[in-house]
Amino acid sequence: MVSPVAPSSGALTPLGLPGVRLLPGFWGSQPTQTIIDHCYTWMERVGWIGNFAGEPRRGREFSDSEVYKLMEAMAWAGDPRIEELTRVVAAAQEADGYLNTKWPGARYTDLEWGHELYCYGHLIQAGIARKRTHGEDELWDVVRRAADHVCATFMEGTEVCGHPEIEMALVELYRETGAERYLEMARRFVERRGLPALADIEFGRAYYQDDLPVRRAEVFRGHAVRALYLACGVVDLAVETGDKELLETVERQWERTVARRTYLTGGMGSRHSGEAFGDDYELPPDRAYNETCAGVASVMLAHRLLLATGDPRYADLAERTLYNVVAAGPALDGKSFFYANPLQVRVPGEKVEGVSPRAEGGLRAPWREVSCCPTNLARTFASLPAYLATADERGIHVQHITPSVIGHDGLRVRVSTGYPWSGSVTLTVEEAPADPRRITVRVPGWAGGGRHEWERSWQQGEEVRLDIPMSPRWVRADPRVDAVRGCVAVERGPLVYCAESPGDAPLLSQIEVSTATPPVERGPSLEVAARHVVAEDDGWPYGEARTEQGEPMVLWLVPYHRWGNRGPATMRVWLPEAR
Amino acid sequence: MVSPVAPSSGALTPLGLPGVRLLPGFWGSQPTQTIIDHCYTWMERVGWIGNFAGEPRRGREFSDSEVYKLMEAMAWAGDPRIEELTRVVAAAQEADGYLNTKWPGARYTDLEWGHELYCYGHLIQAGIARKRTHGEDELWDVVRRAADHVCATFMEGTEVCGHPEIEMALVELYRETGAERYLEMARRFVERRGLPALADIEFGRAYYQDDLPVRRAEVFRGHAVRALYLACGVVDLAVETGDKELLETVERQWERTVARRTYLTGGMGSRHSGEAFGDDYELPPDRAYNETCAGVASVMLAHRLLLATGDPRYADLAERTLYNVVAAGPALDGKSFFYANPLQVRVPGEKVEGVSPRAEGGLRAPWREVSCCPTNLARTFASLPAYLATADERGIHVQHITPSVIGHDGLRVRVSTGYPWSGSVTLTVEEAPADPRRITVRVPGWAGGGRHEWERSWQQGEEVRLDIPMSPRWVRADPRVDAVRGCVAVERGPLVYCAESPGDAPLLSQIEVSTATPPVERGPSLEVAARHVVAEDDGWPYGEARTEQGEPMVLWLVPYHRWGNRGPATMRVWLPEAR
Repeated sequence: MVSPVAPSSGALTPLGLPGVRLLPGFWGSQPTQTIIDHCYTWMERVGWIGNFAGEPRRGREFSDSEVYKLMEAMAWAGDPRIEELTRVVAAAQEADGYLNTKWPGARYTDLEWGHELYCYGHLIQAGIARKRTHGEDELWDVVRRAADHVCATFMEGTEVCGHPEIEMALVELYRETGAERYLEMARRFVERRGLPALADIEFGRAYYQDDLPVRRAEVFRGHAVRALYLACGVVDLAVETGDKELLETVERQWERTVARRTYLTGGMGSRHSGEAFGDDYELPPDRAYNETCAGVASVMLAHRLLLATGDPRYADLAERTLYNVVAAGPALDGKSFFYANPLQVRVPGEKVEGVSPRAEGGLRAPWREVSCCPTNLARTFASLPAYLATADERGIHVQHITPSVIGHDGLRVRVSTGYPWSGSVTLTVEEAPADPRRITVRVPGWAGGGRHEWERSWQQGEEVRLDIPMSPRWVRADPRVDAVRGCVAVERGPLVYCAESPGDAPLLSQIEVSTATPPVERGPSLEVAARHVVAEDDGWPYGEARTEQGEPMVLWLVPYHRWGNRGPATMRVWLPEAR
Repeated sequence: MVSPVAPSSGALTPLGLPGVRLLPGFWGSQPTQTIIDHCYTWMERVGWIGNFAGEPRRGREFSDSEVYKLMEAMAWAGDPRIEELTRVVAAAQEADGYLNTKWPGARYTDLEWGHELYCYGHLIQAGIARKRTHGEDELWDVVRRAADHVCATFMEGTEVCGHPEIEMALVELYRETGAERYLEMARRFVERRGLPALADIEFGRAYYQDDLPVRRAEVFRGHAVRALYLACGVVDLAVETGDKELLETVERQWERTVARRTYLTGGMGSRHSGEAFGDDYELPPDRAYNETCAGVASVMLAHRLLLATGDPRYADLAERTLYNVVAAGPALDGKSFFYANPLQVRVPGEKVEGVSPRAEGGLRAPWREVSCCPTNLARTFASLPAYLATADERGIHVQHITPSVIGHDGLRVRVSTGYPWSGSVTLTVEEAPADPRRITVRVPGWAGGGRHEWERSWQQGEEVRLDIPMSPRWVRADPRVDAVRGCVAVERGPLVYCAESPGDAPLLSQIEVSTATPPVERGPSLEVAARHVVAEDDGWPYGEARTEQGEPMVLWLVPYHRWGNRGPATMRVWLPEAR
């Protein structure tokens, strides 16, 4: 199965890369190769590749993992430069399988922050991608030696890595090899967590999900990427061991997280401090962290839960997150990236030409000292087709409507659509077997949910159509989401919109929109009626309510994923509502 | 002048400790000695005093400063144990005056984070307190040697400390000694900042006010305590050098900070990340950091600006901050302390028995790994009388109404009042000179501002009275403070109120108050009409507005400074307003 995730059982089967070919369109036109090239250039420049060749060590303790994520992207994209990277990486592996450029001579002396097992996780995923797209080669040997070294070193004992990631990689390696020790090692890493296994730290053990055993936790908490990667591994483990209780535990954690700790964009992580989930309903738009990598991880998790259960709510969240977090990550030219994805920016960000030391969400940067997001986007875009459609014994499921050709078991269907700009979809059968097959299209939750199904013996050239209603919608938040009380947001199809005000900072701090009339569509943009309110400064911002004058105005909204492409700007998703 | 601040000029003169004697009352009954004892016990236990005696080094890099702050408190309080601490500290001083328990052998190798000059600042302030209350002794010798060492080491060059503090200490040392080199050293430390003088860091140079020269900054930014300590030093410098432009610069920075970056409680610092000011109007109640020490620093700054300018707005902010940040710091028993002072807590804090590694504001802790707040409270309470009244050539100014006896230049006045619980105040002349004197009482801004003045030849026993209106007030925020849109708060006198719900977490997440009727006074508490709204969970917290059912209820409000004394609780200052 040419897919990042290939479970041995589950409600739905992935189609993998060969089963879905993207055509030009929202997802088919993403700058995947540009991002891969960009990451390669930057990692050569900042020395993270050179680290493997014994050059003076540069970069953070987890920089090896960026090279591995890039290799994974190259494997999915069929980029032959993976071979030279493989040679560089292989040369750095020690005789017993240990491989890390940061800690030679001090192996595993800092499991809390060292990231060694985390790096192996990404190495293994790169190796699996290469094996599934190309077959066994030197990288596969490196991966097997590293994984066997991990099993030999950690099978006994109580240790885990401060950053989960290796769990899902080991389960996938078990899927690829059938070697039980990898599954058992993953199981032990999962079950050791929260006993506890790591030291207490300023952020608290919840930071690395070591506050509670996985089976006892009720919600995702702590560092968002860590929490979501761990949950991916737990789902994989539950599926392969048939542990239904464990799967249901993750489903409940996901459910509460989505109901109480998730932004309208699908973004996760309310706190800059600890890059972490906040408490229930702590969802500030301005200080939303919503790391791009947490968006990637959330899509990875939702995909696993969809495959395991078939429940479309997982695809719903994946779609929301893909369009409004993942797609927002790269600039339109694919050469700069958001790390944090806030829903409000009061002060225009500053343009960064080189390496940014910071994760702020004001303006995309070409590279960062912590540059996990570009490589994570690279591997996600390169393997994206594998996330878009699934199959069961009756036929194919189009999970995400986008221009593409989907083939499985003798049936090949072309999806023609302007989605997400238009809701009309035509499915054309390009090839069909004689016996009946079902074609299923998921209808997003915001369009009423459910699915369209057609089951018959298909003829070549036969078409079916559906229309998803795409009128803009006013959206309000649960009153417990205190930070956006009295505000509305606008969605259209799967897209969240925002007001963006390049070079005009004061404006967005003093608007109120009228919801009496619906937003008017202007191409991909929207127009809403608003007024510009001027509050007076009198030295102290609290006191009796003041009646401000308001000038009527028209406010333009743009799709959130496109914001920040026109230079420094202020921005807001949640708009104060005039009363 | 027995006062922490003794400027050589200014609109108002401090009265100092001998001029103000606190009587039992809100400020006179604070557990000052208990806090001093508590700090001493804990610092012996955690080894921060032992560090000076060559015991294995324990604690963070700035722990010496806690010992010095405790010594300053002891000096103001007349606690004789300062003598034994002086002997311990003096023994650790090196021959050339260098004194630090963390960095011997690696002096000044990390000015960004080393805190060596910061520690000297607190040492100098302790020495000045001792000299002003007792006279020259061994501590004074230690201070002079240390200060001369600093001048010898740093007078030339471009270096500053990552944590401002020494600037105000050096100016005060100049005031006490007349030695110009201390003033010049302070001037250079101030003027070097922002050229820049320090390395860039993940938080950005604004974290330690090294992003811009002081003279070019328009607002306080970065780490709140650092920003406010620096501003204190800048005011002191401006006063002693007669630099009116520099003084006005700080006034403008203060003005914008108060208008846009200050909480209703007077708290400063909107971000946990970097313990920092946020952008203008970024004032989330739940993630308000509002470090207790930033409250102390803000009072120190306001006091300096009041003395320099005579403008009562500075005393207004000091009063707000004293009652709603500083007074909130210690528990009623004086044995546990808040570090962060949020305006909303959704999840009850956890009780800490020992040393807390964290700064969370959910419940007071007896001690922390970073325990700046208890010692800062100790020195503030011990010197508080010096902040409460001032003088000019006509007579005395009662800046803060509280039970006390205030004496200056032959006039002695007893202030009798139940303030802040009652607004009636009686001033009784206990002693008077023959010639006329003026008695001025500042009227807080929330009561209309201005001042009451009586000028005459006073007779012993003569009384004057005033009444400050103390009815509870509904308060709303400038609409640009997005995080509390649609909410009201309640103030009464100088006190901000809050709803506190021990053991009843869900309640405070789902209330709406009615402002149709005024709050009803019940002793120090208030009662407001509210309804309890039950929102339904349907898995996704965004969508069409829902009409929730609401049960009428009565909501009790308590003074904010008293919250968290009844065990784990949820709390909120800003209350959603029913419409």
